[in-house]
Amino acid sequence: MKIKVGIVGVTGYVGQELLRILLRHPAVSVEYLGSRQLKKPAPAGELLPSFRGTNDLKVHPFRITSALDACELLFLALPHGIAMELAPQILRKRTARIVDLSADFRLRSAGQYQQTYRLKHKASPLLREAVYGLPEWNRDKISRSRLVANPGCYPTAVLLGLAPLAKERLLKREGLTVDAKSGATGAGRSLKEDLLFCEVNENLRAYRVNAHQHIPEMEQQMKELSGAPIRMSFVPHFVPINRGLYATIYAPLSRPLTERQLRSIYRKWYSKEPFVRLLPERVWPQVKSVAGSNRCEIGLQRDRQEQRALIITAIDNLGKGAAGQAVQNMNLLCGLEETEGLLG
Amino acid sequence: MKIKVGIVGVTGYVGQELLRILLRHPAVSVEYLGSRQLKKPAPAGELLPSFRGTNDLKVHPFRITSALDACELLFLALPHGIAMELAPQILRKRTARIVDLSADFRLRSAGQYQQTYRLKHKASPLLREAVYGLPEWNRDKISRSRLVANPGCYPTAVLLGLAPLAKERLLKREGLTVDAKSGATGAGRSLKEDLLFCEVNENLRAYRVNAHQHIPEMEQQMKELSGAPIRMSFVPHFVPINRGLYATIYAPLSRPLTERQLRSIYRKWYSKEPFVRLLPERVWPQVKSVAGSNRCEIGLQRDRQEQRALIITAIDNLGKGAAGQAVQNMNLLCGLEETEGLLG
Amino acid sequence: MKIKVGIVGVTGYVGQELLRILLRHPAVSVEYLGSRQLKKPAPAGELLPSFRGTNDLKVHPFRITSALDACELLFLALPHGIAMELAPQILRKRTARIVDLSADFRLRSAGQYQQTYRLKHKASPLLREAVYGLPEWNRDKISRSRLVANPGCYPTAVLLGLAPLAKERLLKREGLTVDAKSGATGAGRSLKEDLLFCEVNENLRAYRVNAHQHIPEMEQQMKELSGAPIRMSFVPHFVPINRGLYATIYAPLSRPLTERQLRSIYRKWYSKEPFVRLLPERVWPQVKSVAGSNRCEIGLQRDRQEQRALIITAIDNLGKGAAGQAVQNMNLLCGLEETEGLLG
Amino acid sequence: MKIKVGIVGVTGYVGQELLRILLRHPAVSVEYLGSRQLKKPAPAGELLPSFRGTNDLKVHPFRITSALDACELLFLALPHGIAMELAPQILRKRTARIVDLSADFRLRSAGQYQQTYRLKHKASPLLREAVYGLPEWNRDKISRSRLVANPGCYPTAVLLGLAPLAKERLLKREGLTVDAKSGATGAGRSLKEDLLFCEVNENLRAYRVNAHQHIPEMEQQMKELSGAPIRMSFVPHFVPINRGLYATIYAPLSRPLTERQLRSIYRKWYSKEPFVRLLPERVWPQVKSVAGSNRCEIGLQRDRQEQRALIITAIDNLGKGAAGQAVQNMNLLCGLEETEGLLG
Repeated sequence: MKIKVGIVGVTGYVGQELLRILLRHPAVSVEYLGSRQLKKPAPAGELLPSFRGTNDLKVHPFRITSALDACELLFLALPHGIAMELAPQILRKRTARIVDLSADFRLRSAGQYQQTYRLKHKASPLLREAVYGLPEWNRDKISRSRLVANPGCYPTAVLLGLAPLAKERLLKREGLTVDAKSGATGAGRSLKEDLLFCEVNENLRAYRVNAHQHIPEMEQQMKELSGAPIRMSFVPHFVPINRGLYATIYAPLSRPLTERQLRSIYRKWYSKEPFVRLLPERVWPQVKSVAGSNRCEIGLQRDRQEQRALIITAIDNLGKGAAGQAVQNMNLLCGLEETEGLLG
Repeated sequence: MKIKVGIVGVTGYVGQELLRILLRHPAVSVEYLGSRQLKKPAPAGELLPSFRGTNDLKVHPFRITSALDACELLFLALPHGIAMELAPQILRKRTARIVDLSADFRLRSAGQYQQTYRLKHKASPLLREAVYGLPEWNRDKISRSRLVANPGCYPTAVLLGLAPLAKERLLKREGLTVDAKSGATGAGRSLKEDLLFCEVNENLRAYRVNAHQHIPEMEQQMKELSGAPIRMSFVPHFVPINRGLYATIYAPLSRPLTERQLRSIYRKWYSKEPFVRLLPERVWPQVKSVAGSNRCEIGLQRDRQEQRALIITAIDNLGKGAAGQAVQNMNLLCGLEETEGLLG
Repeated sequence: MKIKVGIVGVTGYVGQELLRILLRHPAVSVEYLGSRQLKKPAPAGELLPSFRGTNDLKVHPFRITSALDACELLFLALPHGIAMELAPQILRKRTARIVDLSADFRLRSAGQYQQTYRLKHKASPLLREAVYGLPEWNRDKISRSRLVANPGCYPTAVLLGLAPLAKERLLKREGLTVDAKSGATGAGRSLKEDLLFCEVNENLRAYRVNAHQHIPEMEQQMKELSGAPIRMSFVPHFVPINRGLYATIYAPLSRPLTERQLRSIYRKWYSKEPFVRLLPERVWPQVKSVAGSNRCEIGLQRDRQEQRALIITAIDNLGKGAAGQAVQNMNLLCGLEETEGLLG
Repeated sequence: MKIKVGIVGVTGYVGQELLRILLRHPAVSVEYLGSRQLKKPAPAGELLPSFRGTNDLKVHPFRITSALDACELLFLALPHGIAMELAPQILRKRTARIVDLSADFRLRSAGQYQQTYRLKHKASPLLREAVYGLPEWNRDKISRSRLVANPGCYPTAVLLGLAPLAKERLLKREGLTVDAKSGATGAGRSLKEDLLFCEVNENLRAYRVNAHQHIPEMEQQMKELSGAPIRMSFVPHFVPINRGLYATIYAPLSRPLTERQLRSIYRKWYSKEPFVRLLPERVWPQVKSVAGSNRCEIGLQRDRQEQRALIITAIDNLGKGAAGQAVQNMNLLCGLEETEGLLG
């Protein structure tokens, strides 16, 4: 018996990628597609040209009851601020499960949420129940939960890169520097002048310098992993590619490590992970290698100076950074093989 | 009377950009175009489609005597290792002037050159005479010299970003981090698989991590500016755009500065500079703004943590990062207005 | 004494390119920049990052009297439907001149305009006075006029390609096929989902197939040139580049021509033209060669079959296809050298 | 029992795409990867970064015996001129099957081959045995054959677009015009200056105008389909995208058809085809919709003039234009479901 799932917000880039993955997933049946903007039902292939003629699905103007009637598990691929309204209603149905791809359940504290997203949190009791969906570090909790907060794209790349050092209490509390680069799907399918082809193409720019909304999420998780507050500088850049996210991480260490020690720590944590690839010495990640997959590549070296590690990670922002990871979380939630339907 | 100039190595991307600028320069006459690969003379417009029908110039198989007969000043736009063979011969002619766009005369020490470029330096006596052609910091020396070593593209962006702090002795010796991003013309017009369209497009990757040949050049100049050795981490990235270079610089300070103090230092040094633009608070450079120009944009802010400045600079790697700056140097060498023929 | 000019609609891609060209034009002084969307004056460099720090100009909320007080000639770079409201008011000032870059004065017939643009024409008396600004074929009329209708980008590329055959009465009335390809600036700087980076990048699509608004403009001009109605198929395509327009033209001939005859016809008409380049046999235009210039490249050959010529033209849609040609028209209107300030 | 297959020439773009598809194919086991350039065996993930960590396969210096020992079916993804040397040796093994992705077995006549590819054909007896692998029109023959000549990318897009008219004897013999556009993977992974990122990006150009090597292949097949020689003009263009092929076809008809008749012909032939999608009226194909799939989209309309049909087709040049179609052919050759392992 296939698991019945639905996608709310299927017309965005993340929603489309979810659909693409789920249609090939052998243990899943897509039973519901919803969109809040839609006025009346329309064939998926008409709204989303990549799906022209590949299926008979319809997208419906989103109604929570229809979604719940059709599905056991809902993916919420919506802008922040919506999922916190929907989740309490959805979870009234006992058997329902949610993978929320927005920011609404990623932060533990309603105050922090309000400060970051300039919105009062409307479902703060659920903040405690929600599990942060980074399977490599939270596998068990995820499989026992009802509401998974799928991590942000930047946090996924950065936390996968830093978690081994954080867990081993090897990170200094100060000086951590993350220089990140993202493709344009990361900004979503919204009508902003900055996102027009002619503005993005042949351009390169930093944005939300040290002010990106993912910083509190990353610092919260770093603290959970390491047991101590760790402060980071974070400068994201906008790059003219469709898909891909690249994080170059300069991490001051609390004690000196040889090249070998550094590498063996990462090997220890990641050698069995199906979606994390520690690259050989002097080989560095590239976006091309992970595009379309649920993989995270990690390159590693002692830095040229100080007592620092240089860690570079690459993911597909729509894959491991969003839809791929959401399906990985669904697999865990539903007791399936964790890798099922995903490209490792 | 116009100044007679020539370009050796006109078929590369830097050579072509030089030609483009010089053809519009009101005080200059392009009298010689040479290429080492060429077997027999050919019209420039035939070899370089962007110049089809724009001029009657011919490109000649390079011969030093022809070049010297025709010109007072030669631009050498060649791979490293060639200019050091040509310069001594060229400078035998008393009135000759050279702007060398390769790395051959940028390093003060022949030993350092050999270590960096794996070649024995063949004109080490000229290393002392050569002037490092960063006009904003070396204007007077350049105008009195015969041989200008045009800075590398990364060093230009990084040194313009760091020089005010270096000059004011405000940089810590350790911890300096430069995360740089370059367009594909920076790699030159060479037949390497990595440079094929399908390999670069929709990709993003770090390369020569902490091992780029521009590191010794930058550290040498940082020491000259600051009077003390300053060590940097340097991770360059390859980005799918034709032109543009972006440097995100995380600079630990030797003493705390307010936002205001930081900004006033940069204003002091750069407010009169025709080609350096200090952007307003919270405005950050973008490649689009400097493409095709000789401008360097600088964005500035205290970093989110530690005692650090965050400096971001953008240049056109072919403009201020190569051909534009070479023409700026020519203007100084020849006693012209420094900005003549250049887009400010 | 410099000619005082102004640009209305400077924030669009065409307006910006006009500004870029005019700022370098030796005989012109830019005295007015206006925008209809603006609420209050703002520095040009703030609205248009490419002009950061390059000038002290302000953009003003457009008011016709301020524009007329400051300028002798106005460039109208506005969506269709506006210029026809402004032109009558502007031309009340005797000495005023207009180069209109919209479609408002390109069609001779108010009825045809209404049918094409779904708007009633509001200045139909001016339709007779307006001169179609294709200098290569209309030079004298332009120089004597007050109101120049700058041709559309597609019509410029197609008419330059076909005019010699049309003038020589060598075109068949049926069967003419134009397959055109345009970069994204051709669609303007408007907030449409189709124009988002992720929709354009790595994509390719035909649009307004046989229904593009430039068809009546082209057929009208073809008739004027050839004295007889000529019907064309016209399929424009959208290509992921910023600038550039490419027209591949399959032209049935009314009588057989040898390769030599065909070529000599084009040579006869174009050998003296400063902005039209007839390429040698078996050499074909490319967008890269004309980007940033006011040039049109033409490649030519007898077609593989029937009695047809194959003509390929390339222009920069913002250059010869809009702003460059507008400046060429201004030069004619103002009695300047036709090529002044333009890259040939 | 899975079918054992091998790829010879796995490092090219077509070879990699084959590997990508075959690794997910449920009925196939990849038993051999060969490369002629390789000196010694190397892990696939090392040579091809997209496969880093996804499998344990090795690429071997190609030796025919090793390949034959390991596999029942070989994909030959090699430049033209090689397969004709290998095929006779391979087919000495009775049970062996070949899908050849080069041009070597596409043309019926050794003379035509020699004229087109400037090479004497070395296996002309096999030309009669080889089946042209366009499954939509040759399904039965393919399933009974041992040697399938996988069609070229342009021929696939053009023949799928024209075959219904050809079969119905509705095409005129003269005047057929195909204006085609291809992404850069179509040119292969070869070190040519024209294929460098900076030469392709922001550029657009026609190439091999009316002289492309796929013309004889298309005309041969058109004749087979229609029973009469049909001559075409064919102008391919090079477009800055990685994947995708777009054919705009202007097809003169031998007798007038209404819009409805035209459409019903295509519906008749294609409504059951799993990989061909006839789009609704006024909807046109786009490359984005077919990228990564084995689909061909067809848009259709009566042309604006004459008695012509306008047909537009889009495929992924690496999918339906090469590797996808090769797997479709393999499915037929091996008695599998035709759509197995492919995205429809």
